[in-house]
Amino acid sequence: MPRLAYLGPEGTFTEEALRLLDPTAERLPCATVSAALNAARSGDADGAVVPLENSIEGAITTTLDEFAWGEPLLINAELLLPVQFSLLARPGTEIPHIKRVYTHPAAITQCRAYISRELPDAVVVAAPSTAAAAQEVSLPGSPYDAAIAARIAGEHYGLVELAGDIGDRSDTVTRFVKVSRPGPLPEATGSDRTTLVVFLADDHPGALLEMLTEFSVRGVNLTRIESRPTGDGIGRYFFHFDFEGHVADARVGEAIAGLHRICGEVRFLGSYPRADGVAPQIKRGTSDPEFAEAGEWLAKVRAGQV
Amino acid sequence: MPRLAYLGPEGTFTEEALRLLDPTAERLPCATVSAALNAARSGDADGAVVPLENSIEGAITTTLDEFAWGEPLLINAELLLPVQFSLLARPGTEIPHIKRVYTHPAAITQCRAYISRELPDAVVVAAPSTAAAAQEVSLPGSPYDAAIAARIAGEHYGLVELAGDIGDRSDTVTRFVKVSRPGPLPEATGSDRTTLVVFLADDHPGALLEMLTEFSVRGVNLTRIESRPTGDGIGRYFFHFDFEGHVADARVGEAIAGLHRICGEVRFLGSYPRADGVAPQIKRGTSDPEFAEAGEWLAKVRAGQV
Amino acid sequence: MPRLAYLGPEGTFTEEALRLLDPTAERLPCATVSAALNAARSGDADGAVVPLENSIEGAITTTLDEFAWGEPLLINAELLLPVQFSLLARPGTEIPHIKRVYTHPAAITQCRAYISRELPDAVVVAAPSTAAAAQEVSLPGSPYDAAIAARIAGEHYGLVELAGDIGDRSDTVTRFVKVSRPGPLPEATGSDRTTLVVFLADDHPGALLEMLTEFSVRGVNLTRIESRPTGDGIGRYFFHFDFEGHVADARVGEAIAGLHRICGEVRFLGSYPRADGVAPQIKRGTSDPEFAEAGEWLAKVRAGQV
Amino acid sequence: MPRLAYLGPEGTFTEEALRLLDPTAERLPCATVSAALNAARSGDADGAVVPLENSIEGAITTTLDEFAWGEPLLINAELLLPVQFSLLARPGTEIPHIKRVYTHPAAITQCRAYISRELPDAVVVAAPSTAAAAQEVSLPGSPYDAAIAARIAGEHYGLVELAGDIGDRSDTVTRFVKVSRPGPLPEATGSDRTTLVVFLADDHPGALLEMLTEFSVRGVNLTRIESRPTGDGIGRYFFHFDFEGHVADARVGEAIAGLHRICGEVRFLGSYPRADGVAPQIKRGTSDPEFAEAGEWLAKVRAGQV
Repeated sequence: MPRLAYLGPEGTFTEEALRLLDPTAERLPCATVSAALNAARSGDADGAVVPLENSIEGAITTTLDEFAWGEPLLINAELLLPVQFSLLARPGTEIPHIKRVYTHPAAITQCRAYISRELPDAVVVAAPSTAAAAQEVSLPGSPYDAAIAARIAGEHYGLVELAGDIGDRSDTVTRFVKVSRPGPLPEATGSDRTTLVVFLADDHPGALLEMLTEFSVRGVNLTRIESRPTGDGIGRYFFHFDFEGHVADARVGEAIAGLHRICGEVRFLGSYPRADGVAPQIKRGTSDPEFAEAGEWLAKVRAGQV
Repeated sequence: MPRLAYLGPEGTFTEEALRLLDPTAERLPCATVSAALNAARSGDADGAVVPLENSIEGAITTTLDEFAWGEPLLINAELLLPVQFSLLARPGTEIPHIKRVYTHPAAITQCRAYISRELPDAVVVAAPSTAAAAQEVSLPGSPYDAAIAARIAGEHYGLVELAGDIGDRSDTVTRFVKVSRPGPLPEATGSDRTTLVVFLADDHPGALLEMLTEFSVRGVNLTRIESRPTGDGIGRYFFHFDFEGHVADARVGEAIAGLHRICGEVRFLGSYPRADGVAPQIKRGTSDPEFAEAGEWLAKVRAGQV
Repeated sequence: MPRLAYLGPEGTFTEEALRLLDPTAERLPCATVSAALNAARSGDADGAVVPLENSIEGAITTTLDEFAWGEPLLINAELLLPVQFSLLARPGTEIPHIKRVYTHPAAITQCRAYISRELPDAVVVAAPSTAAAAQEVSLPGSPYDAAIAARIAGEHYGLVELAGDIGDRSDTVTRFVKVSRPGPLPEATGSDRTTLVVFLADDHPGALLEMLTEFSVRGVNLTRIESRPTGDGIGRYFFHFDFEGHVADARVGEAIAGLHRICGEVRFLGSYPRADGVAPQIKRGTSDPEFAEAGEWLAKVRAGQV
Repeated sequence: MPRLAYLGPEGTFTEEALRLLDPTAERLPCATVSAALNAARSGDADGAVVPLENSIEGAITTTLDEFAWGEPLLINAELLLPVQFSLLARPGTEIPHIKRVYTHPAAITQCRAYISRELPDAVVVAAPSTAAAAQEVSLPGSPYDAAIAARIAGEHYGLVELAGDIGDRSDTVTRFVKVSRPGPLPEATGSDRTTLVVFLADDHPGALLEMLTEFSVRGVNLTRIESRPTGDGIGRYFFHFDFEGHVADARVGEAIAGLHRICGEVRFLGSYPRADGVAPQIKRGTSDPEFAEAGEWLAKVRAGQV
């Protein structure tokens, strides 16, 4: 039974994601994304589950930066989790009594309409996570009257759900990934995704276009690009790329070897099955058999057998 | 004397930026980036100053999303402000007494080494902003012993600086922009930057490459690209672009008209002098006189005068 | 009634093309392509009809070089003429008697199978043109027994057709163009072609890719590219381009103005209706209304009206 | 001692090229380029020397088409030969007596200024080759008074040189290649050229751009591109490419394997030392060691060793 660290405390959306990714795993809640990943790195856990991006809030930059700068870890699974917010309070609290609400800034953003309409006079205070907000609200002397968090957090901390699904949009999704220390990759399934971090060798005009061309010329479709600062001043960035396919695919291998040749550093973050099961359209001339046949043709040409 | 809204309270780095951008302006502190921008939109202020990105933390996503989705505003100036953090406390406090520190998460990240070394046992709690942390610490009954914030915040709130420049890096910089309601643009200076938001018409493979080609074919160099979720599910993004040049430049005008033609929506966010004063290298054939001469040539060709 | 020069003598395929392009024109046969074009340049004729390329033989390089280096002329029409070769001889000659055949080298190539099969022992001699061969064979003391030429040439010179359609392929086509001195262009029809000559400014790696990108980024499809030596040594070339659309089309105008800016010299050779009547697929964002709308949008943006 | 076929008769520029490429070879003159190449194919000769392009006239299309359509041969050497034309006549002839000149059309073009100036009244007749013209003129009853050909042709056929170096340009060069039946390739020298023929799979807009991108993305510089008709009608072309580097180079191998994957057919025509000894500039990330290192990196990544 594997032991998986996650962004806790108990009751976070991340815990929910972990339960779906590996229902039988032992769960190790950690205070921060960094702590969860470090537990996986140190061997305290066999892996970790952390959020990577949200369909409203965007990238979880702590996760991106940990993947780019910390000790290497490999993503081996992803999950898309619909995110539904609940208004949670200590038993006995009623909505008109709520003067102070505690929750994560992302939840403030995503529940803006509900808050304006139903809690127009409440002060809303930023918490480090939605589950931490629920935990704080559960304390008897808490200065907060309610938390906005996942329903699961209410169950954990003995809170009552005063309202459910209070987000402005009902289709908000968070993408979580499961990582572990480097080791054998998941098999290619035909519906895979690969994630990379790329640092430029020298930041010349056209460098990004060159990187994208390494993908496009081999028919590899990007699904996400994020720029992040290198820390060396405004205007210096590195890039996270998600793209279709598995590094075992010939077209993907050649594309990332190309990036490795022209860029300063390429850090491979894993190839893993897509959560949405979508299979890529393979552009003419870029399938594995076509690469293999071209390799045989080239070997003959080099031997002068034409 | 213009009245400029900014991300307050008094004592924030943003206030410092505003004072440098317009020393004589009347200053209107606002609780959030959104509130500051709304003050500019509504006419409560003549403009606003907000942070756009930080060389360690990356983009200020609230600002990006406000610019993309809110009522239009135009950037008319930018400023690069070195960010130095101070450890601030109520008079009489000494470092060994500090058990609870309050500051913004970005400051936690950027002062990690100092905190580990000098305050190894302190609990560090996330605040909505560094100035809010200073304000909170200044209250007599505050549960926090110290704040990490800009020195200016200490002066505002009557705190003592126990340690200065405690960031892990001494070269951290935040980029601020000054915006106002749409109106005449700043004149081109020869060292300008332009900022755009681009929404895709349909998210096909290669769409990003096509957008970058609209720039590169006219010799326009990108200086920043940020992807942000459209809100329509994981995998759907729009883009912020910064690039060299002024929209009055022929090459820039043709490039963004090209984007406008092929993309779903292009929102212009302003052309303004670069804070670093760097002039772009003009690629052969892309200067204004060369565009003008080509236009005259084309007119003759169309008239059959060859 | 216009007077049109053409590559003669009477009986050439070019004469046939001229008759189809302008049945009522007065015809002025000339000894060479250059002479026909010079007649148009000098005013001896109102225009000229010359071959540009053949579906087997390829480009007529004399025509290409005349268009590139000679006094400017503009193409105003094109014609695709199926080319059928006949074996022609003086009355009384029978195939078994034929020992010496006279014809243009292109006809030798295109009738190779017939010659091998039916005239295996004949000596085949290269003539300057197929019509010249017919003319020569028509002379009483000619050393040649037969010519391979257009049937029309036989009629002109009193020869008998011993065999018709003797080409290896029955679908051979020659493309002819009608040119005149510079003046108003033919109207755009929606199915047009434009022809250009482009000289590089400096022959750097990637120069050709850059030129093609000027077309592709505006959705302009090339239909022909020919490289020709500049005369300045092996490895130095200039280019002929044919592409879809009329120079009055916004996308075509912007593309060729772009070429004009980045290249050494662009010589416009005309926009004219396509002989095949094929209308181009207009790529999203590249139609005239889309260009016009983008221009209006840009004007507003530049005025700060966003 | 190898036996090499060449475009004869004796006295052609091709013979001169053959002597320079292989001074000790036995020489087999052939009537046409095709005949010379067929001698090499059939084993009648060990190889052949033929012209490929001229710095004034452009490509020798017969050679291009033979290489594309005939039984495969491989280029193993190239030579750049300055072409100097002489006016040759039978002993006793003087320039004022010359009424009829016989020579190849290319020579007519290249000696136009001399002919206009010195032989304004002479009739100039097209011959199949310059050497054939010299041979014809050497016959006692020839209707021609002089030939324009290589000096060597005069020596062969007993003609007197009345004027030397009469070309309009003194820097005209013809490029010759030596071919043989497929077999081991010449070793890479660091200054090599590779020649290919490429047929499109389907002639879609952008196909040429895609082909060029396969080269550019691997840093392979084109030195020549020629389009030739496929024979399937106007508007259908295939391409000859010359580019820097040897097929044994990793970047070249990957580029042509890429072409092989996306195109209908790629025919390799050889890798051989450049006549001009120019070494290519190797773009960052495209040297053999960089390819090898990237391959090792990829193998580790695929094994999960990051």
